[in-house]
Amino acid sequence: MLAEIITIGDEILIGQIVDTNSAYISKELNRIGVQVYQITSIQDDRQHILRALEDAKKRADIVIVTGGLGPTKDDITKETFCEYFNDTLVESPEVLQNIQNIFSKYIKKKPLPANIRQAMVPSTAQVLQNPNGTAPGIWMEKDNTVFVSLPGVPYEMKHLLTDEVFPRIIKKYNRPYIYHKTLLTYGLGESAVAERIEEWEDNLPKNIKLAYLPSLGRVRLRLSSTGKDKDELEEAVNSKMNELRQLLDDIAVGFEDETNIVERIASLLTQRKQTLSLAESCTGGSIVKEITAIPGASAYLKGSVVPYETHKKVSVLGIDKTLIEQHTVVSAPVAQAMAKQANKLFETDYAVATTGIAGPTKGDGDDEVGTVFIAIASPMRVECQKFSFGNHRERVILKATNKALELLLKEILKN
Amino acid sequence: MLAEIITIGDEILIGQIVDTNSAYISKELNRIGVQVYQITSIQDDRQHILRALEDAKKRADIVIVTGGLGPTKDDITKETFCEYFNDTLVESPEVLQNIQNIFSKYIKKKPLPANIRQAMVPSTAQVLQNPNGTAPGIWMEKDNTVFVSLPGVPYEMKHLLTDEVFPRIIKKYNRPYIYHKTLLTYGLGESAVAERIEEWEDNLPKNIKLAYLPSLGRVRLRLSSTGKDKDELEEAVNSKMNELRQLLDDIAVGFEDETNIVERIASLLTQRKQTLSLAESCTGGSIVKEITAIPGASAYLKGSVVPYETHKKVSVLGIDKTLIEQHTVVSAPVAQAMAKQANKLFETDYAVATTGIAGPTKGDGDDEVGTVFIAIASPMRVECQKFSFGNHRERVILKATNKALELLLKEILKN
Repeated sequence: MLAEIITIGDEILIGQIVDTNSAYISKELNRIGVQVYQITSIQDDRQHILRALEDAKKRADIVIVTGGLGPTKDDITKETFCEYFNDTLVESPEVLQNIQNIFSKYIKKKPLPANIRQAMVPSTAQVLQNPNGTAPGIWMEKDNTVFVSLPGVPYEMKHLLTDEVFPRIIKKYNRPYIYHKTLLTYGLGESAVAERIEEWEDNLPKNIKLAYLPSLGRVRLRLSSTGKDKDELEEAVNSKMNELRQLLDDIAVGFEDETNIVERIASLLTQRKQTLSLAESCTGGSIVKEITAIPGASAYLKGSVVPYETHKKVSVLGIDKTLIEQHTVVSAPVAQAMAKQANKLFETDYAVATTGIAGPTKGDGDDEVGTVFIAIASPMRVECQKFSFGNHRERVILKATNKALELLLKEILKN
Repeated sequence: MLAEIITIGDEILIGQIVDTNSAYISKELNRIGVQVYQITSIQDDRQHILRALEDAKKRADIVIVTGGLGPTKDDITKETFCEYFNDTLVESPEVLQNIQNIFSKYIKKKPLPANIRQAMVPSTAQVLQNPNGTAPGIWMEKDNTVFVSLPGVPYEMKHLLTDEVFPRIIKKYNRPYIYHKTLLTYGLGESAVAERIEEWEDNLPKNIKLAYLPSLGRVRLRLSSTGKDKDELEEAVNSKMNELRQLLDDIAVGFEDETNIVERIASLLTQRKQTLSLAESCTGGSIVKEITAIPGASAYLKGSVVPYETHKKVSVLGIDKTLIEQHTVVSAPVAQAMAKQANKLFETDYAVATTGIAGPTKGDGDDEVGTVFIAIASPMRVECQKFSFGNHRERVILKATNKALELLLKEILKN
């Protein structure tokens, strides 16, 4: 049961956009037991589309194509599908009705001829109605391979995938069960982790695969297996994962995908009716942005301040000016005072504070670029740690954000 | 002069990570006149890698492969290159030296056997030294096609691409010049834009291609051309772009890629020695994060506050409580007061404020999910606009962030 994804659009091949659709589709297909064999990004070009469709047909049972369905002249996916399936375009009354509804409800104008043309679909296609846009999805079959064409707009694609494509796949195919479980570790490099678990890894059963996913300051370890019996499979993977977790007990922080770290913080604080505030200097709003991205933040987040200019740490946050003069603005005492003052200003139980030098230039401190102090104030204490996150601004901010969330979670779990 | 990109890693095909390397490599190759024909993401699987290399060789002059170079057992790219090139792995003394340097300088431990093995390279490969990591890049040739293998870690890949791969490509190949120019418009849908410029589009010269790139609330229009004479090419595209800009004068906001919108705001405020603050409620730190992501923000950004809880708008930002009671917290008067108070609190010239309902639930206001008020306070006035950004939390925050930056830039340009 293999699928392939083809994303169409010159904008991908000149690097104007990052293709996020493929990762989304892959993850969702995996969930329903469909393995993605290959992802191919190609140009808005007739010959190229035809070849990619034919190549994918040789390997896959399902081919999901995104992009090239817009109302303008550079969009040629539908016409090329017709050529590939030796079909012609006909107007679909139901799609036309949907287009007219969207225009009267949201755009409050009559559809243009280009929009009306979007109601044209290959005569043998099953139409997948798109309530969020004017381009319909289509489902066609050739030599036992299913071809699905979806709009490239992520929001429209996602709804069509869930509401129209997946029910048809689930009905049509008997799928195996695919199970992944990922352990999140930090503080040890990929090769050091590998060395520690070598003997265990060598004795893994053949049907369980281990992958190492290193990223900034972390290594994620993923166990995967495919099979027919859901319970048996989960039990086998979970049992190996328990062994792995014990081997890495000192560096493991939890499992991925169950919930992300912000969701864990959110659920703990909400349950306990405790509250959070932040005072971010060098992370510049990056932490609070992660927190407010998850619905329900208002249950525990009272607020945040970014006192970017040194003087604003005094005038807005109420840090003692002499403390800054004595220790410099990038220091543990200032980070701790920022956390304490955030708790006071926002009347919260927990506060996170960051001060450091994101770079590329040194700013108001004496320390090296990449130096960051992270303080966590809890109802019990204020703790602070110093880090060196290297000399690349984007990475310093990202590493400090990840580390601050980790330290906050650990502190909450202690109490 | 065509290139292809092959990204290797099961984590891409199960959707655990988004492949951002391909977009970066494509964009950079374009800059030096190399067109990317196809991007292919494949599994850490010997057969799959061999087939992808052979397929790409048929179509491309340069094949850039990323991923699968780590020290652990699931990384097999180097071994598979050896098989494809009928070669064997030998230890590279210079790579070994680099690995030892990295361990003694950053990790302060002796390299493990798995790291030492990273010094093994195919005997006929040109080694591309990686000062930022232990996995070297390699450059090999077969039947007039160049194959480059780079680590998948974005930071290491980017440096190797710029410092090692590009100088070799530039030396080896005579490349045409590729020129893109992209106009940013907002406020009109893709098909309405297309209708307005239809006659102009039909008369475009054959060697200039137009593409429509719709995204949240905006349509970007990209003109592209390829040729040998840089000046002639740029003149032809720029002249057509001027015509296009005139046709769309009322909805055009500028050109993309010259500088992004934050960079334009940063350069104007820095030049004028003016300052900025923010009070973000529903955008939850998303705007200040965009601003601090660009180096040099400390020249004009004084600070930001996220008064997430309604009461904190009173206690921290100093909004009049009766104003909130009279108009509700999601209202133009409150947004305007937030912007004014941010200017006061942070002693700045410009302030941006947002209040709204990001969803999925309604929160403290009476309005529909997606309602957002954005206020901009300048030295001259405070303006506010109301928007309806739909009912998808992530999109509401993103649309409000983009719109707020647009309104700020427009206001700065007025003064």
